[in-house]
Amino acid sequence: MESKNVTMVVHSGDFDKIMSAFIVGNGFLSMGFPVTLFFTFWGLMALRYKGFKKAPLSRMNMFGLGRFMIKQRVKKYNVASLDELALNFRKLGGEIIACTMTMELMGIKEEDLRTDLVSEFATVGKYCYVTKDADISLFI
Amino acid sequence: MESKNVTMVVHSGDFDKIMSAFIVGNGFLSMGFPVTLFFTFWGLMALRYKGFKKAPLSRMNMFGLGRFMIKQRVKKYNVASLDELALNFRKLGGEIIACTMTMELMGIKEEDLRTDLVSEFATVGKYCYVTKDADISLFI
Amino acid sequence: MESKNVTMVVHSGDFDKIMSAFIVGNGFLSMGFPVTLFFTFWGLMALRYKGFKKAPLSRMNMFGLGRFMIKQRVKKYNVASLDELALNFRKLGGEIIACTMTMELMGIKEEDLRTDLVSEFATVGKYCYVTKDADISLFI
Repeated sequence: MESKNVTMVVHSGDFDKIMSAFIVGNGFLSMGFPVTLFFTFWGLMALRYKGFKKAPLSRMNMFGLGRFMIKQRVKKYNVASLDELALNFRKLGGEIIACTMTMELMGIKEEDLRTDLVSEFATVGKYCYVTKDADISLFI
Repeated sequence: MESKNVTMVVHSGDFDKIMSAFIVGNGFLSMGFPVTLFFTFWGLMALRYKGFKKAPLSRMNMFGLGRFMIKQRVKKYNVASLDELALNFRKLGGEIIACTMTMELMGIKEEDLRTDLVSEFATVGKYCYVTKDADISLFI
Repeated sequence: MESKNVTMVVHSGDFDKIMSAFIVGNGFLSMGFPVTLFFTFWGLMALRYKGFKKAPLSRMNMFGLGRFMIKQRVKKYNVASLDELALNFRKLGGEIIACTMTMELMGIKEEDLRTDLVSEFATVGKYCYVTKDADISLFI
């Protein structure tokens, strides 16, 4: 088994998609692969303080379950754990890059973003640079 | 031409995105590459019996075409064929893994999921394990 | 540093996601890597004349900012530049393939699509063929 290098662009700010990013990221970190997440657009906005709590689900009404009920179910099971997932990701050595272009576009300042999560501020060039040595890259 | 190994996380439950997953998957299978799809979150819910019929489009109103008209056009052209695409995917040797975490979260049981499509029940660890030997992985 | 080959399926027609596709694509082109984008479904519809202007944002209401305000902010910063980004992508040697299946499905003709952007009309088979030699592929 050779070493794999994984990167992801986290463009979406949806609660469930960010969960997926960290779940997959933690999976790869547990196998010993370096993982770097580049948070941009709505994804970056979720890294603001209280950002996870405000993040919507990517879909609300399905199969007869109403918006409220699904929200309850997911929230009950996971709100606490999205935070945990993200903090575990950092503890396991995962890197989180905040997209500076989005910060400029959306008027987000460095101090608006969680210092316990963001490990670096950089442009997309950094994502491309890391990804050139990556084996797998996902766009979420 | 070397052999390629392709995996996908199918997180979205949108009709058109699941179509894309199977169309791309069947394309790679036709070229002789192993393909594994990991269905999670809304994607997994579409694997329930009648799930394809209930799957919404990712977007409804565009360029003056109303919701109804687009739906008619896509449905007319493809509803039958999403099923066909998925069954062909399995016939061509593609693997479909159902995410057990989503099953727990959403209260989905094994018997709720189509046995003609799902080939395995597993956690994200299995996706990571298969993907470590993959050349290409997509997040849909 | 070895050469990397990058491909993307651009399924989404959201303004911000198409921006991301071109920003990432231009980043890789600037590093000397070949980049091929396969536009399909809603993504392809955005390649119609005036398609960029009609493309919606993937999300409108966030963090207290209303739909109008976010739209203004993004538009002010970027509408002109999405066009620029796309044209730069082509100038830097990036390839744009228009999905012929989507054209058939949606009733789009060759003359409906921008000749300054589209470099080829082809099926998903072409995407798979190019991607078999790719190191990185994203689904947007």
